[in-house]
Amino acid sequence: MAGIVRFGVSLEKGLLDKFDRLMRRKGYGNRSKALADIVREKLIVQEWAEGKEVVGTITMIYNHHQRELTSRLLDIQHHYYTEILSSQHIHLDQCNCLEVVVVRGVPGKIKALADQLGACRGVKHLQVTMSSTGKGIE
Amino acid sequence: MAGIVRFGVSLEKGLLDKFDRLMRRKGYGNRSKALADIVREKLIVQEWAEGKEVVGTITMIYNHHQRELTSRLLDIQHHYYTEILSSQHIHLDQCNCLEVVVVRGVPGKIKALADQLGACRGVKHLQVTMSSTGKGIE
Amino acid sequence: MAGIVRFGVSLEKGLLDKFDRLMRRKGYGNRSKALADIVREKLIVQEWAEGKEVVGTITMIYNHHQRELTSRLLDIQHHYYTEILSSQHIHLDQCNCLEVVVVRGVPGKIKALADQLGACRGVKHLQVTMSSTGKGIE
Amino acid sequence: MAGIVRFGVSLEKGLLDKFDRLMRRKGYGNRSKALADIVREKLIVQEWAEGKEVVGTITMIYNHHQRELTSRLLDIQHHYYTEILSSQHIHLDQCNCLEVVVVRGVPGKIKALADQLGACRGVKHLQVTMSSTGKGIE
Repeated sequence: MAGIVRFGVSLEKGLLDKFDRLMRRKGYGNRSKALADIVREKLIVQEWAEGKEVVGTITMIYNHHQRELTSRLLDIQHHYYTEILSSQHIHLDQCNCLEVVVVRGVPGKIKALADQLGACRGVKHLQVTMSSTGKGIE
Repeated sequence: MAGIVRFGVSLEKGLLDKFDRLMRRKGYGNRSKALADIVREKLIVQEWAEGKEVVGTITMIYNHHQRELTSRLLDIQHHYYTEILSSQHIHLDQCNCLEVVVVRGVPGKIKALADQLGACRGVKHLQVTMSSTGKGIE
Repeated sequence: MAGIVRFGVSLEKGLLDKFDRLMRRKGYGNRSKALADIVREKLIVQEWAEGKEVVGTITMIYNHHQRELTSRLLDIQHHYYTEILSSQHIHLDQCNCLEVVVVRGVPGKIKALADQLGACRGVKHLQVTMSSTGKGIE
Repeated sequence: MAGIVRFGVSLEKGLLDKFDRLMRRKGYGNRSKALADIVREKLIVQEWAEGKEVVGTITMIYNHHQRELTSRLLDIQHHYYTEILSSQHIHLDQCNCLEVVVVRGVPGKIKALADQLGACRGVKHLQVTMSSTGKGIE
């Protein structure tokens, strides 16, 4: 891969040992990858705070027996068709559905969409997960 | 729907007014639904803390050009095929993939799976989202 | 207390039972108080998001042996004397201090103060805790 | 300070540039300090998850006019006198008090104390903040 920079970091030995232990327990074989991951986490939180273009998911549980719920959820989603990339549906049991909607756009619009879905009668739980377009956080 | 219970709640007027305003801004038409939603949120956090059977999602961004990454991710996932319900893949750009894996099982196993995926070279970001089977939180 | 409003809430019996159980385990004797508490939590998160006047704490751990750190921390704090209400200091061991600074003001200024303190050499950890003036959330 | 280790880290140039920019905006002058801080954050979350000895704060808002509340809060705190290091009290207005209790012990006991305080009538909001003894995270 092009564009790798190598630089020196100074840490207290005790701190580094503890980090290495945590890293190994989580299955990391490589300290640079472990540090890169926590750096990316911080940057993604920042992307969302700054209102830049982000990617995220909206995870909902709902009861599909609720009258007119499924058509209401579809109507709302079509309003945001430019933000919605795709969705995935799981039949959890006779009543409960899990739906994961992958979205791309500015955080304000994603939250507005999430609020509208979450307020529908029959939606029991909704979570927004912050992810990224992956650009600039290689 | 069967099994609805109606009970009285006492709140300070000022607090209730503020809650009603927040609720309306989020699009809720119904105070019981708004209260039920925040109760469910608490219960789902509790389900995860207690190690009961839960449902969740694992959202990853990765660079599919990373040598052997895609087969490594598949190998790991097949190890946990009893926990994985389905997955969804988005081609974010030439390099970046977003994958959302829906999982069901005990939180410890879900986190072990997430750790293994996240430690793979080429995976840039991984988030676990806590959701629920929907049972008992009607 | 004046200004109490009583209103009816409808929940599924299963959901209410689970909430009652969680409530009792946490020591609550009163459902209205338990619901009021989670409503207040939501409103306080909202106060911070909206940039209104809030109250919070900044909790730091630092090594007081770090050259010039204590005077640097005092300098920064004096710059924000209108936001800082008081502070509390614990000698954790020979090296480590814990300091809790109680602040009141707009979230942006509190975060700027926290960033400046956290960037000082010798400060090992800093956390901002969101609380409230208590007004309007009776 | 003794015990500093210097090691090399490899990151993509784009990622490092973004991190440097975020770092500077937060006032950091030193990349090693910025990386050490996010490493410590991870380790402190881990200390709390593992049930080791930790330090934390409990931040409460309460209405001191609530009958018998102050003596109830004192009673509970005396029960946990071995965990409580000190407390700080702010008179927010005529009714509202802010109290910050600094605690040291195992997370389970700190949470039990927090639950008991939070369940008292008149306590409007309670937050537990995770910090550390500072040992081993130099």
